[in-house]
Amino acid sequence: MIDLPTLVVNFKTYYESTGSRALELAKLMEQVSEEYGVSFIVAPSLPDLSLIAEITNIPVFAQHVDGVSPGAHTGHITAANLKELGVSGSLLNHSERRIGVDLIADGIASLKSHGLHSLVCSATPLVSKALASLEPWAVAMEPPELIGGDVSVTTRPDVVKTTIALIQEASASVIPFVGAGVKNSKHLSDALLMGSRGVLLASGVTKSPTPRIVLEEMAKVLQSRIDS
Amino acid sequence: MIDLPTLVVNFKTYYESTGSRALELAKLMEQVSEEYGVSFIVAPSLPDLSLIAEITNIPVFAQHVDGVSPGAHTGHITAANLKELGVSGSLLNHSERRIGVDLIADGIASLKSHGLHSLVCSATPLVSKALASLEPWAVAMEPPELIGGDVSVTTRPDVVKTTIALIQEASASVIPFVGAGVKNSKHLSDALLMGSRGVLLASGVTKSPTPRIVLEEMAKVLQSRIDS
Amino acid sequence: MIDLPTLVVNFKTYYESTGSRALELAKLMEQVSEEYGVSFIVAPSLPDLSLIAEITNIPVFAQHVDGVSPGAHTGHITAANLKELGVSGSLLNHSERRIGVDLIADGIASLKSHGLHSLVCSATPLVSKALASLEPWAVAMEPPELIGGDVSVTTRPDVVKTTIALIQEASASVIPFVGAGVKNSKHLSDALLMGSRGVLLASGVTKSPTPRIVLEEMAKVLQSRIDS
Amino acid sequence: MIDLPTLVVNFKTYYESTGSRALELAKLMEQVSEEYGVSFIVAPSLPDLSLIAEITNIPVFAQHVDGVSPGAHTGHITAANLKELGVSGSLLNHSERRIGVDLIADGIASLKSHGLHSLVCSATPLVSKALASLEPWAVAMEPPELIGGDVSVTTRPDVVKTTIALIQEASASVIPFVGAGVKNSKHLSDALLMGSRGVLLASGVTKSPTPRIVLEEMAKVLQSRIDS
Repeated sequence: MIDLPTLVVNFKTYYESTGSRALELAKLMEQVSEEYGVSFIVAPSLPDLSLIAEITNIPVFAQHVDGVSPGAHTGHITAANLKELGVSGSLLNHSERRIGVDLIADGIASLKSHGLHSLVCSATPLVSKALASLEPWAVAMEPPELIGGDVSVTTRPDVVKTTIALIQEASASVIPFVGAGVKNSKHLSDALLMGSRGVLLASGVTKSPTPRIVLEEMAKVLQSRIDS
Repeated sequence: MIDLPTLVVNFKTYYESTGSRALELAKLMEQVSEEYGVSFIVAPSLPDLSLIAEITNIPVFAQHVDGVSPGAHTGHITAANLKELGVSGSLLNHSERRIGVDLIADGIASLKSHGLHSLVCSATPLVSKALASLEPWAVAMEPPELIGGDVSVTTRPDVVKTTIALIQEASASVIPFVGAGVKNSKHLSDALLMGSRGVLLASGVTKSPTPRIVLEEMAKVLQSRIDS
Repeated sequence: MIDLPTLVVNFKTYYESTGSRALELAKLMEQVSEEYGVSFIVAPSLPDLSLIAEITNIPVFAQHVDGVSPGAHTGHITAANLKELGVSGSLLNHSERRIGVDLIADGIASLKSHGLHSLVCSATPLVSKALASLEPWAVAMEPPELIGGDVSVTTRPDVVKTTIALIQEASASVIPFVGAGVKNSKHLSDALLMGSRGVLLASGVTKSPTPRIVLEEMAKVLQSRIDS
Repeated sequence: MIDLPTLVVNFKTYYESTGSRALELAKLMEQVSEEYGVSFIVAPSLPDLSLIAEITNIPVFAQHVDGVSPGAHTGHITAANLKELGVSGSLLNHSERRIGVDLIADGIASLKSHGLHSLVCSATPLVSKALASLEPWAVAMEPPELIGGDVSVTTRPDVVKTTIALIQEASASVIPFVGAGVKNSKHLSDALLMGSRGVLLASGVTKSPTPRIVLEEMAKVLQSRIDS
């Protein structure tokens, strides 16, 4: 079980969040998570996965999974392999790693059968609804033109609210997330107020000169929303 | 530097060679490699990479790499990340993970710039020549219809010899490998006699009930060829 | 406007239904369609499109469309180009030409903005629901393992009925179709009785030694359902 | 047989060169080709192919081909289909339609077996050499960053000359072409002087307000090189 609301930090393949720096950043996330009693998820690069899953207690997500069973699949990621490493779930269909709709459906099913969480990314409110129909754990809507930029998705409240409504229309049990351009605690706070149960972010933490301060500010926002 | 001839064991995503079993099998490969003084390369699943690179002394290869620089590339594999984890190289363009020719060229260049080895797979003699022109460390020709099956590539000596000649025609410095259907020391011995400097195999080791025996028989063949 | 129920004949790239044979078969479909007053749709190969759209009066669909605007897109298919040639719509995401969910959404939107029909293919009831959320003209569910084979999708009435119910749950305006293994008028009749408003088929017509007879039998079934 | 040197005009999917405008532009190319006795190749959009192949006498190329035999391949392009329509060849691996190296090899082989010409695109001198090893009819090197822009590939004479040398090193029978940013007769003239036997261009003709003038200027350059 992953507590909500939560913050998903996507390490991508940034220099600042791969290799030994990934280990340090994951440990920092764990410390702040424990100090504030809030929920953080870390999504390290695929090659970093097993070491990070071994050293941290917060939930670890893969950045991608292939919906295939163990077997002759060179260069693929199986849910069975993730499960055994202590990984808790996976992103699917991130805008930097789009896959076909069948592969999304297979990935969700494969994660689910191993008791793992699927966080499926989408680009628009309508696609969010479509993907919510596949019954993943969560759908994260991220307008691609805002990813990695300085304009937060929360500056488009209509898009965020429409997305959340459409996800709930498709399935009441699917958790709505948003992301893209999220850099600070104000963005997180706004997103949660709009109904999002979590936020995806990357460079806002990974490229910050003071990641502890960013994480602590985020933690305070999450904390204030736990009992509300 | 990787000693030649060598045996590359592709763990794919088989149940028998992922997670804790991957660690055991990699340690077994290391032991046999040291006992016999021969060269083995292990290519574990992407999520298993960092743990295996940490615990073993034999060269570790990724099963795939993306020729991109560190940055906003969710779900990708960078050479920089591999280098930092102590990985020695990567497979590229395996038949189960084909990529475009530009991505092969970028992957080779990216690995090379980090001092890593590129082992590019191909399906035919002619494609082997084309890919050897890109100056990877090695080209491994594997007829797709034989991969995972019971007929060894070495039952087609003309195809093997033509491949090796074409690779050398394209570039004298590129190391020729073959693979597909290779299960036992006779296949390895035949491949080396035909001019191959190494062999790729997977299920012959990973699914064997007695992997130590298979590896020891392979080690004896490699040993006999070191000084010859 | 395309009349319902309808029969979509996918010419794929079979020898029997490309080039001059495609023209003949499209003319035959037109004749039978007119004689019986029923609705047929022809989906010729992409290179054959412009000639067939010029010579036939029945609706012509492309086998694939890319949801891009006119511009620098070598080897792509734009809805604008199809519209100008007199094409009426396009298949999207056929099991032999799968695309990402964003590309499906873009393709539907692009076709719609040109007044063209989108027929989106899916592999399962659940994916059918997801794709119906994107508001295409129609969703055609085809179990991949039955495509091109001798077992009709209609031998699985539960799957067909579940699919139709899920499509209607997602959107009342999306037309449900089924396909795969459909060879004769009995299969068509069964599909329509189960609630499908049309059927996709290919080799049942294109590879028949007597396509006129097959089409006439199909036409009789469609005719009997128009007034019912 | 296609006469050399030649000019390949890629119509892409521009508004100005699809549908009825494609027919007019192809006829214009034919007229100028005949008036000046020079070699032009037209590469229209895939849906426009059959009509253009029917109305023009200059060689017509597809913008893409799939190296598959006729059969159950929805949305694919077969060489057999192209041949029957009177198409003379195809581009392969254009930067806007990249494919895997096996598919390039299969496409070349399939075109060759139908007596059709393969024009394989590449991004760099080294990749040009690799693709020339596959023995296509021609290799066209186009630096992707210059495609569609205002800087001609001919402003990089070293890159052009290296490319041509590497192509010839791989295979003396493969014809070297260049492209990207080519807009006027000076660029064409420079390319031919550097050893290129043809040039690929697109917007320089398709988006010109006076395509006849551009084509005539190009024709004069080609004419001057025929007997030299």
